[in-house]
Amino acid sequence: MLTRKLGEIVSSAVRSGTSESAREAAKPGIIDTVATMLAGRREAPVTILLRACGALPAGAAKEVAGLSATRAAEAALINGVAAHVLDFDDVALRGHPSAVMVPAILALAAELGSSGREALDAYVVGYQVWGELVQREPGMHHIKGWHPTSVFGSVGAAAACAALLRLDAGRAAHAIGLGATQSAGLMANFGSMSKSFQAGRAAQAGVWAARLAQEGFTAGADVIEHPQGFLNAFSPAGKADTERPLADPAQGWTIAQQPVSIKKYPTCFYTHRTLDSILAARALTDIPADQVRDVQVHMSREHATVLRNHRPETGLAAKFSIEFAAASALLFGRAGLSELTDSVAQDARVQALMSRVSTVLSTDYSAEWQGAAVADWAVIHLADGRRIKTAPVTHAQGHAMRPLEKPDLDAKFGDCVRAGGAGVDADRLLGKLWRLEDEPICELWS
Amino acid sequence: MLTRKLGEIVSSAVRSGTSESAREAAKPGIIDTVATMLAGRREAPVTILLRACGALPAGAAKEVAGLSATRAAEAALINGVAAHVLDFDDVALRGHPSAVMVPAILALAAELGSSGREALDAYVVGYQVWGELVQREPGMHHIKGWHPTSVFGSVGAAAACAALLRLDAGRAAHAIGLGATQSAGLMANFGSMSKSFQAGRAAQAGVWAARLAQEGFTAGADVIEHPQGFLNAFSPAGKADTERPLADPAQGWTIAQQPVSIKKYPTCFYTHRTLDSILAARALTDIPADQVRDVQVHMSREHATVLRNHRPETGLAAKFSIEFAAASALLFGRAGLSELTDSVAQDARVQALMSRVSTVLSTDYSAEWQGAAVADWAVIHLADGRRIKTAPVTHAQGHAMRPLEKPDLDAKFGDCVRAGGAGVDADRLLGKLWRLEDEPICELWS
Repeated sequence: MLTRKLGEIVSSAVRSGTSESAREAAKPGIIDTVATMLAGRREAPVTILLRACGALPAGAAKEVAGLSATRAAEAALINGVAAHVLDFDDVALRGHPSAVMVPAILALAAELGSSGREALDAYVVGYQVWGELVQREPGMHHIKGWHPTSVFGSVGAAAACAALLRLDAGRAAHAIGLGATQSAGLMANFGSMSKSFQAGRAAQAGVWAARLAQEGFTAGADVIEHPQGFLNAFSPAGKADTERPLADPAQGWTIAQQPVSIKKYPTCFYTHRTLDSILAARALTDIPADQVRDVQVHMSREHATVLRNHRPETGLAAKFSIEFAAASALLFGRAGLSELTDSVAQDARVQALMSRVSTVLSTDYSAEWQGAAVADWAVIHLADGRRIKTAPVTHAQGHAMRPLEKPDLDAKFGDCVRAGGAGVDADRLLGKLWRLEDEPICELWS
Repeated sequence: MLTRKLGEIVSSAVRSGTSESAREAAKPGIIDTVATMLAGRREAPVTILLRACGALPAGAAKEVAGLSATRAAEAALINGVAAHVLDFDDVALRGHPSAVMVPAILALAAELGSSGREALDAYVVGYQVWGELVQREPGMHHIKGWHPTSVFGSVGAAAACAALLRLDAGRAAHAIGLGATQSAGLMANFGSMSKSFQAGRAAQAGVWAARLAQEGFTAGADVIEHPQGFLNAFSPAGKADTERPLADPAQGWTIAQQPVSIKKYPTCFYTHRTLDSILAARALTDIPADQVRDVQVHMSREHATVLRNHRPETGLAAKFSIEFAAASALLFGRAGLSELTDSVAQDARVQALMSRVSTVLSTDYSAEWQGAAVADWAVIHLADGRRIKTAPVTHAQGHAMRPLEKPDLDAKFGDCVRAGGAGVDADRLLGKLWRLEDEPICELWS
């Protein structure tokens, strides 16, 4: 009955809306995704896709990455890639929910003429369904090879789009099944253009799923919980829990209870605690970068495994490098879009400092964050013999437990718009996004 | 190096072609797929997709299902669904390779202006790559929930399309990785429209994968063999063999050594041996259907599990019913497209006879066909006390070990074209397909 009950969550939200607190909690993720979409719009995976989609006709949906108009599914694909390509998008539910759902919602909402309030409700619903699925798996999808963002994203985006299309429970359940049918994406593609493609494809799949279900296309009635269905197929050890009761939205929507973490740095989230820790130390103490003899970063073995690039030579690779993070923090006092570039990664000073960074791996695990150490910090030895231990950080700035303040969010938005060179009036767009419940989606970009 | 070596198979075939024997072996699958595409063109999943794709522009690729022109990727999607929706398409490599690859090849070849010979080579290459992947997995993908046709199809179609686009080894490897990135499809959707959708999506994914790789889009260099890559992610027990050397095409292409089985009946292949057995008995002996007291079908437990519809009331459900197969054979002396309909399934005589059919499950397994009994047969008791044991059948007519003769293939082609009502000159089209190496693909339908 799980598939059917997920369909009922959608249809119930269509009839009654979600809640004001849930919609407010959804806003930072939506705003931040628009920012990362605009920042990523000139990256190679996006420009190649734009060429490949070149023959598409004009349509009602805004294709933000290229600032031209095209059809909703393709707009969702392209903008999903743009949102995820810089690895600067938000983090939650063991993946990146907004990079998949927001492009799908904005594209379809623009085509349908939906209100901002409907778009917010759609996000809340998709997030709820995503949470219901991810919480049933005790294992690590990554280990088996699955990219959770795209695997769950296809279903979450389908649910969000089903809400926008105002599907009834039966058709919404088929949309969810059609999303599951298209769930895909492999870890082995990390470090290639296919990582962001997987997010974009999931966004596109969500639009297709809901559109087809609206037209009467069917999926299996039990496609989520069936022994040969979604949860078991993707479960590394086949131990997914299909029996656990669904959370009752009347007791609070998941987005309000487990909101997204917003990235302050365009690097793997696993580097953020170290970055905060070193940058805080640098603000308090003079640490001349050219005097650094060595740096030991203390973090968990699992996180270090993901940060596999030890001497990166491209901006993309540098995103997954604790050595780069430490070097950038010490040399420049920041690690922003202007540091995450090929030329900075290849800079002789950066390369030299990276060679002096090593890791000390901890098995003192956090109870609340799977695979993380309780805290991350660094020990820096200087040429003059000084030893600086930076303060341990448990929640990076931007973590849901330590959210960015509005000025920080707004500053990131402006940085992203400038970096992408879209020629958009950032302040005007940002103002509309903070008032999204009152803004028709198709007027967002005007 | 597996991913790279698969790319080299593609590029080597682009440089040197495949072989005449391989191209000849490919023809029956291609011809049969065009037949099932045309037969399936008015089924609901196809007509819904045509509506959903309604806004697409005209293009060079023929969209056979609707006999209108549209873009290659969408044509591949729609025709892949049409080819698979009736479950009348060919069987090989633990799935249905032609229903995925042929729609992708024909659509892209039409757009590119490829020759028939190039299309045949592309099929041979895609089949080779599919075979290399499927043979590395000792377990049953179905049990874990995966639909092998769509999972392997996405990669096989990508390889075939990469050959048509004449990609070099590096780009072909990226195409294969981009196919793997999109591999998806769940068993729990069997019995719904999503089953054929999964085949169509794989065809579409193949076109996208090759097109993007051509433009420089990248996937992981080791996406097939990486511990978090394609083979392990889809492997039920994580025991895929990534080390086994690749077969050398110079020693013979897989299509020539393990050709497809062509279905004589539009039902699950697991019913075919029983159908052959009962129909042969009926041709030899008078078996009045209204005198049948009961029928016991002897088959394996595994096959019976897949044939889960015991009293089907739709043509779609009847495809997966041994009771329907037996009743149709006894009542009508055939089980063709005109029997696999809702009205025949609901016919009172059919329903009455189905209620007298039961199964005797064997554990005497075939050494060559995973999950099958050594042979299938039936025992029929008549009201007058007669007991008729039909002859055991090991290879159904159409099985690769007992291929259909050309007149049977041609007759199926004509039946399929008539059933689909496409208004195509079947004889003329069939003649062109048998001479495919000399026929430009874009002139196939003219």
